[in-house]
Amino acid sequence: MTRNRQIFVRELPKAELSEEHFEMREGDMPSAGDNEVLVRTILISIDAANRAWMKGPTYRKAVKERDVMHAYCIGEVVESNDGAFKTGDIVAAEAGWADYSAVAAADVQKLPDIRPLSHLLSVLGIAGKTAYHGLVGIGQPRAGNTVVVSAAAGSVGMYVGQIAKVLGCRAVGIAGSAEKCDWVTGELGFDACVNHRSDNLFRELKAACPDGIDIYFDNVGGAVLETALFQMNMKGRIVCCGAASQYDIEDTTGPRNLPGILVVKRLRMEGFIYFDFAKQDEKAEQNLSTWLEEGKIKVVDDIVGGLENAPHALVGLLAGENRGKRMVRVAPDPAKTGR
Amino acid sequence: MTRNRQIFVRELPKAELSEEHFEMREGDMPSAGDNEVLVRTILISIDAANRAWMKGPTYRKAVKERDVMHAYCIGEVVESNDGAFKTGDIVAAEAGWADYSAVAAADVQKLPDIRPLSHLLSVLGIAGKTAYHGLVGIGQPRAGNTVVVSAAAGSVGMYVGQIAKVLGCRAVGIAGSAEKCDWVTGELGFDACVNHRSDNLFRELKAACPDGIDIYFDNVGGAVLETALFQMNMKGRIVCCGAASQYDIEDTTGPRNLPGILVVKRLRMEGFIYFDFAKQDEKAEQNLSTWLEEGKIKVVDDIVGGLENAPHALVGLLAGENRGKRMVRVAPDPAKTGR
Repeated sequence: MTRNRQIFVRELPKAELSEEHFEMREGDMPSAGDNEVLVRTILISIDAANRAWMKGPTYRKAVKERDVMHAYCIGEVVESNDGAFKTGDIVAAEAGWADYSAVAAADVQKLPDIRPLSHLLSVLGIAGKTAYHGLVGIGQPRAGNTVVVSAAAGSVGMYVGQIAKVLGCRAVGIAGSAEKCDWVTGELGFDACVNHRSDNLFRELKAACPDGIDIYFDNVGGAVLETALFQMNMKGRIVCCGAASQYDIEDTTGPRNLPGILVVKRLRMEGFIYFDFAKQDEKAEQNLSTWLEEGKIKVVDDIVGGLENAPHALVGLLAGENRGKRMVRVAPDPAKTGR
Repeated sequence: MTRNRQIFVRELPKAELSEEHFEMREGDMPSAGDNEVLVRTILISIDAANRAWMKGPTYRKAVKERDVMHAYCIGEVVESNDGAFKTGDIVAAEAGWADYSAVAAADVQKLPDIRPLSHLLSVLGIAGKTAYHGLVGIGQPRAGNTVVVSAAAGSVGMYVGQIAKVLGCRAVGIAGSAEKCDWVTGELGFDACVNHRSDNLFRELKAACPDGIDIYFDNVGGAVLETALFQMNMKGRIVCCGAASQYDIEDTTGPRNLPGILVVKRLRMEGFIYFDFAKQDEKAEQNLSTWLEEGKIKVVDDIVGGLENAPHALVGLLAGENRGKRMVRVAPDPAKTGR
């Protein structure tokens, strides 16, 4: 019988997450129960939000001690006890850090025939749609607007700036090193990028946004959010996508200029999750596909090999070592191996 | 020649505002210059925002040391050098704490023939319109929603809750004493009111909002805002109207649950000033007048007599001693004295 590797949460982190919080164990391969499918994991999405799930309930249930680590995955159906799925289907599912997961069919989604499969997690998946829906649906950009995005070299940020450019906006990134900033402007075509570890983020951001900020797409919260808030233009929009700077911290503090600056500048600050915009998904997919074909947006995927490297992949993501959408490859695309 | 009393800002406050920061001086009556009108002050609006103006530029220019204290006033034109105004017109103007002010005609607005004049500052003026536009325009209430408003016994809060009731919502106030809470429920008809100085605001607010909060109309910021944020329902709206708890504080801190909770609950937090909704003013005035005639909303004005009492009126307002819209009467309504 085929064995199944699973990575469990050994202990929930109290502050900074480390690889010690996880442990891998091997067991028997599960089988699909009633109305379940057995999914062989191909790619695991690695997201800053995974760390937030470990702090408590968010927009989904919390990750608890001794759980197989939760994850959004792409996989292949290898056994189905549900009429909607058959062996060989390529699906997305909320599964876990494991070779195989038995998942309720209701929680599984069939994926379109798109290659490479990694695009279904990045530009045409969770990363691209989060960028698109947040920028377009919440930010409501107009040509000529200045759009600032934090974690600009990250999975979502890299698309926010590129989409902003397509829509005729000035795109300014905020990233965690001079090298990342060079990549964001040189490779991705942002108009400017500022290093948030610089001695004077406020002044550098101001220099990069001479006409102020119309839309700030926030992936990090904390001090960077506070700095951006001070430079918002009247009637500006703050798209709240995540707060990656806060996930490893127990006692967080909010930006000191809130709520006063929202009143004075009449700002709108709004949170979202990409699936809130499911009704606009078709439009998003069409636009992203078109821009991709036309070479208007670049895709950079950061694929870490091997299930056993998932803990390091997440810890490293939180430390900012990735460029583009990070994922872990657990198995090859079956279309390539001809199984 | 008639003398003119003016109250100057002797010194800008560094922390808590006191009457010592002002001084009254008497001088000659000014006269209207080109395209100016001379306005005899009848009523001065006393607002928490006046204190915010003393901290720096906001949605208007800052009050500076040695200025005559700025204020929104209702008055009578006694001299006009502009074709748009004639002696005897009742007008609103950004004037000052003074018996007489010469004001650029462009900054003066003719008022409709409504009595008592105090209604033009309260229910049919800045207070009622701020409540209406914030609740309706930003909050977008639906029947059955739970609406929570802070400073519920204050000029704006008292109308927010009453309008919420007219629109079929559950209205819950937050106020600064048990007596105010009794008044808010007993006199104004709110469904519940919670004392923010109680030992456990969180628990009491939760008990008053068993179905969570759909709209939080925030007049205070700080700890009360943070508490309300934790109890917001999915897709809730936070109407940012002011931050009265923060005006007397030099170093403020924001709610620690921001921006995370905006993402998790998909909240919208938006600031406004009533004049942003000038296009909806006619509709607001119609509705407020109708509800007033039908006895669906009550008006309580808190009128302090005498220009010399303006400093105390503002300091007392910031300490929360008022119920309803506070204003200072400087002169009687000319229609009553038959001048």
